[in-house]
Amino acid sequence: MGRIIAITNQKGGVGKTTTAINLGAALALSSLPTVVIDCDPQANTTGGLGFARDPGRRSLYHGLLLGVPLEELPLSTSQENLSLIPSEKNLVGANIELSEQPEREHVLGKKLASLRERFQFILLDCPPALDLLTLNALVAADSVLVPVQCEYFALEGLSELLDTLARVRRTHNPKLAVEGILLTMFDDRTNLSHQVRDDIENFFGNRVFKTVIPRNVRLAEAPSHGKPIFAYDPDCRGAESYRQLATEVISHDSQGVGEGAQRAYSGA
Amino acid sequence: MGRIIAITNQKGGVGKTTTAINLGAALALSSLPTVVIDCDPQANTTGGLGFARDPGRRSLYHGLLLGVPLEELPLSTSQENLSLIPSEKNLVGANIELSEQPEREHVLGKKLASLRERFQFILLDCPPALDLLTLNALVAADSVLVPVQCEYFALEGLSELLDTLARVRRTHNPKLAVEGILLTMFDDRTNLSHQVRDDIENFFGNRVFKTVIPRNVRLAEAPSHGKPIFAYDPDCRGAESYRQLATEVISHDSQGVGEGAQRAYSGA
Repeated sequence: MGRIIAITNQKGGVGKTTTAINLGAALALSSLPTVVIDCDPQANTTGGLGFARDPGRRSLYHGLLLGVPLEELPLSTSQENLSLIPSEKNLVGANIELSEQPEREHVLGKKLASLRERFQFILLDCPPALDLLTLNALVAADSVLVPVQCEYFALEGLSELLDTLARVRRTHNPKLAVEGILLTMFDDRTNLSHQVRDDIENFFGNRVFKTVIPRNVRLAEAPSHGKPIFAYDPDCRGAESYRQLATEVISHDSQGVGEGAQRAYSGA
Repeated sequence: MGRIIAITNQKGGVGKTTTAINLGAALALSSLPTVVIDCDPQANTTGGLGFARDPGRRSLYHGLLLGVPLEELPLSTSQENLSLIPSEKNLVGANIELSEQPEREHVLGKKLASLRERFQFILLDCPPALDLLTLNALVAADSVLVPVQCEYFALEGLSELLDTLARVRRTHNPKLAVEGILLTMFDDRTNLSHQVRDDIENFFGNRVFKTVIPRNVRLAEAPSHGKPIFAYDPDCRGAESYRQLATEVISHDSQGVGEGAQRAYSGA
């Protein structure tokens, strides 16, 4: 049974798309069939995997709102084992159209079930907003991976996101676990990067991925060539970091993500 | 060298005072000289340790603002190895008077240094506010222990506190670590308690104490008798939970509190 991971942070520019593409590619490189679903009308993941932003092609929009079965939508990418359900700008309208559906937060989750048989990992790249598309992703997901850019207000945004995750757990998806907080754009030479890393690790302990994604120009360039980093520059530091991240994510499978530490609740 | 732990949460009624008294007493029972400093003008910790709220007696106020050396202030309590620096209502004025001091956030920290030789643990019971007294405690402390009541809005308050802690780390005390998040008033029979525990463990992983403090009527009664739980009902579940908490806090000494997990920062 495939695992559904929502990659989310309501802030833009924190590395969601880079992570969706390259974590997906790294999982596929480990021979694990993986599909990345681009839930963002900006369609950056679609473009970054080499597909033109084509409103004529069937996209997640057709699956969500026009009744096309989701299993018909995955496109093969240039990388073996990696598929994509693309986005396009019509998805902007999905927020409004979804709001008129019964159980509007559960539309994506119900349709995704069929993909769990075929793919080991289903990565949902969320839009940079706490909108109905993101809410559908959080309700559909088994766990949430939160990329956090190493910059001054990293923590302020995080606490807002935690409130949202807590609310989703209370209302729609009590099983939603934290896959991990991923530090991105880490610049070893700046004090600020180290300070942010210390803060986040101090507060969130083992909920922070051991892997840290460095600020790396090759990671930034790869999407404009429509390729995952492993096809563009497989030996750069950015590529290495995403291979490590995939290893961590795979290891969570056996450990049970989000399981609380053993407790000594006395007298219970 | 004694360790300074601030017990803080800007919410009232979460178990700060109960924790200051009974964690302090449990540490003292382990033959570790411990002083509890009552930083709250409401003086509940002072009362709960059997001292009348006496504005005539020298208190933390005299140490902070009237130049009395802090090492002259600890009172012996009925329990061996446990001392108290009491509070009284004049401490209300400390917020204003401190604001006129140079380096107003560091007043307590500078004065506390002398107590580190004499006590193994220095517990600061903070007022239920993010005021200048609490700020002084956070700046003085090595670590912060955050009691969280198992109730619906537990997480909402926590994220606000995290923002404050991050700001203190940036501005005044970069070494401030998270001793742990302590779940209090856990009621095994209610879904809500379990839900809150799951949420908090899901987000904060190993930053959450394994010990959970149960809702326990004996813990609630003990302060009105001016006694730690170990003198009032040493065999109740509440007493057992604070013994376990002390064991966890002591074990942090050797492990290094708040140290981030080892990281695989690739290519650094």
